[in-house]
Amino acid sequence: MEPTRPERAPGGHARRRDALRDLLRRADLDALLVTDLVNVRYLTGFTGSNAAVLVHAGDDADRGEHRTVLATDGRYTQQAAHETPDLRVLVTRACAAGLLGADGEHGAVGFDSAHVTVDGHAELTAALTHGELRRAPGLVETLRAVKDAGEVDALRQACAAADVALAGMIAAGGLRAGRTEREVARDLEERMREAGAEGPSFDTIVAAGAHAAIPHHRPTDAPLADGDLLTMDFGALVEGYHSDMTRTLVVGVPGAWQRDLHDLVAEAAAAGRAALAPGVATRDVDAAARDVITAAGFGEQFVHGLGHGVGLVIHEAPAVSSTATATLEAGMTVTVEPGVYLAGRGGVRIEDTLVVTDDGAAALTQSPRDLVPQSRDEP
Amino acid sequence: MEPTRPERAPGGHARRRDALRDLLRRADLDALLVTDLVNVRYLTGFTGSNAAVLVHAGDDADRGEHRTVLATDGRYTQQAAHETPDLRVLVTRACAAGLLGADGEHGAVGFDSAHVTVDGHAELTAALTHGELRRAPGLVETLRAVKDAGEVDALRQACAAADVALAGMIAAGGLRAGRTEREVARDLEERMREAGAEGPSFDTIVAAGAHAAIPHHRPTDAPLADGDLLTMDFGALVEGYHSDMTRTLVVGVPGAWQRDLHDLVAEAAAAGRAALAPGVATRDVDAAARDVITAAGFGEQFVHGLGHGVGLVIHEAPAVSSTATATLEAGMTVTVEPGVYLAGRGGVRIEDTLVVTDDGAAALTQSPRDLVPQSRDEP
Repeated sequence: MEPTRPERAPGGHARRRDALRDLLRRADLDALLVTDLVNVRYLTGFTGSNAAVLVHAGDDADRGEHRTVLATDGRYTQQAAHETPDLRVLVTRACAAGLLGADGEHGAVGFDSAHVTVDGHAELTAALTHGELRRAPGLVETLRAVKDAGEVDALRQACAAADVALAGMIAAGGLRAGRTEREVARDLEERMREAGAEGPSFDTIVAAGAHAAIPHHRPTDAPLADGDLLTMDFGALVEGYHSDMTRTLVVGVPGAWQRDLHDLVAEAAAAGRAALAPGVATRDVDAAARDVITAAGFGEQFVHGLGHGVGLVIHEAPAVSSTATATLEAGMTVTVEPGVYLAGRGGVRIEDTLVVTDDGAAALTQSPRDLVPQSRDEP
Repeated sequence: MEPTRPERAPGGHARRRDALRDLLRRADLDALLVTDLVNVRYLTGFTGSNAAVLVHAGDDADRGEHRTVLATDGRYTQQAAHETPDLRVLVTRACAAGLLGADGEHGAVGFDSAHVTVDGHAELTAALTHGELRRAPGLVETLRAVKDAGEVDALRQACAAADVALAGMIAAGGLRAGRTEREVARDLEERMREAGAEGPSFDTIVAAGAHAAIPHHRPTDAPLADGDLLTMDFGALVEGYHSDMTRTLVVGVPGAWQRDLHDLVAEAAAAGRAALAPGVATRDVDAAARDVITAAGFGEQFVHGLGHGVGLVIHEAPAVSSTATATLEAGMTVTVEPGVYLAGRGGVRIEDTLVVTDDGAAALTQSPRDLVPQSRDEP
């Protein structure tokens, strides 16, 4: 079997498990049962569809690692041997319960109460005869929120694939009256794949005319018409990492109200981006952008949060909204995406993915933010 | 806004809610809090990414329907008005808790303990001040397991799109040495879209040579070689319904061991299909196929269940495995997919989607099951 591409984990997944052990000790836990598949992948590199991992803290890293076990079922025995050669593997269909039922005394075992269901919890309680279950939501997500250099690089590639796709489509004259929303969506997705993406990072949104007033519109066979606002919200998947961007362009010549609306949202987006820096509360980032829109009288028409963390999942920690409680750290990757939606007329959203740096933030999305598309060579 | 395609719910989603009310009364529940988005879609037609619905039983259907409310957030206000014009809509971000906190006395409210997380349950408990939460897993899934005529029709179209894609690719000479697994996968996906699918119904599996020994292999840039077994497990999405099929073909001329293995799995698959009928325990269907493989000495190499229900989700009720407890009913749609996997050498899996009829089952998958691909016109 030829090797698959290495996971993005410079220093290895073992280093991430060690970082998790520090969190476990601080939380007074002897072990953490990790059941969310994305968290399993982050900690081990295993990408099968049925798995769990029990990470033991141990008295030291070596002993903790020695007791740490990945569970998966018989379909993935070979894949586990290939992807996680450094971990013990338990083969069972009931992965989480199987891990708790094996291997003697476990002590205080944290479980992710934000992922484990009520029925699942009952099964775990029955399985854990030598130990005690404790709620421990979000520990791995806390680690995942701060990206390492390899992860930022994957996100940068994912953002570049989306940039290249949009520029290429514009250069090819792909934004013209008569094309359907669905055709534009497929065109962007094809071009992202050609640019090296594994695929789109979520269902591509293409919304023309009045549809642009619907933040999460799904593309239809409606044709683009001259004078339409056209909102495209899309991203690429590279090595499991998701990019996310939105541009609102006009088909043909914009009207004055469209220019005004776009200028307003662009100003809000710039204010949001400028507010990003380590130590800043994400609610304050939301406020920096929202205040611009509210002051212009469109606060009610900005119906969602300003942004979200992005990485192995398209929406992950930290939330960037008026009710969020997170504080930015260097290495966090977030979107900034203010929007104003006018029912029956259209809407504008502008979204970039950025990485928080030591003294601000750097854009990973590189596409221009013009309302009128400029045909240019691919970057 | 032009109308989107109608949901597959002849007689309306209201009829499904009425059927659910019968289950609620039998379970002595005054209402069911539905939080799984697929279940929300099934009961209401709403397709947004954040929603819940509180279905009240009521003293009669009219009163129950009158108190039934869909909750979603501000991004989806227009979409909800469009997709569920017959339901009251509550606009809030915390959909489930919002529904329980509103509207006076709720009585005994079932929640889906197989979907609601431990943290989610804590929020619901805090929100429901006038009523009592009770575990009620799987009620909507019970309804969903038996498809109505419109749903079977959508599944038939989804299966046909996959059949057309495979036949077209074979006719075009697409199964030849030198092509990569990834190219074959993309080719199948493209052809399914051309045949009317919204997209693939899951990540297409294309596994050549020794990779065919890995049941859930992801396609790589490995080229097909003459004499390879090639397993393709793929399906199409049509109006939200998922088809699922697998064929194992040989590139070039098969060896004797490949013919023998394919004959064995084909015999097991035929035995499984023949066992399908109303009133039959799905574990007995699994046994019918598994016995064939076990008798040939390959029981240990058939590492997964025989099949699964398929519909709005690629894996849904009823399970078809040695540990399943379901009994077949007319209208259930299931896969039959035995496989034998020989580490390092390759494997064979043959999978069809079928609908249980009054006296047996009808295949929705129509592709031939030959080991050696026959170039033929598209069906």
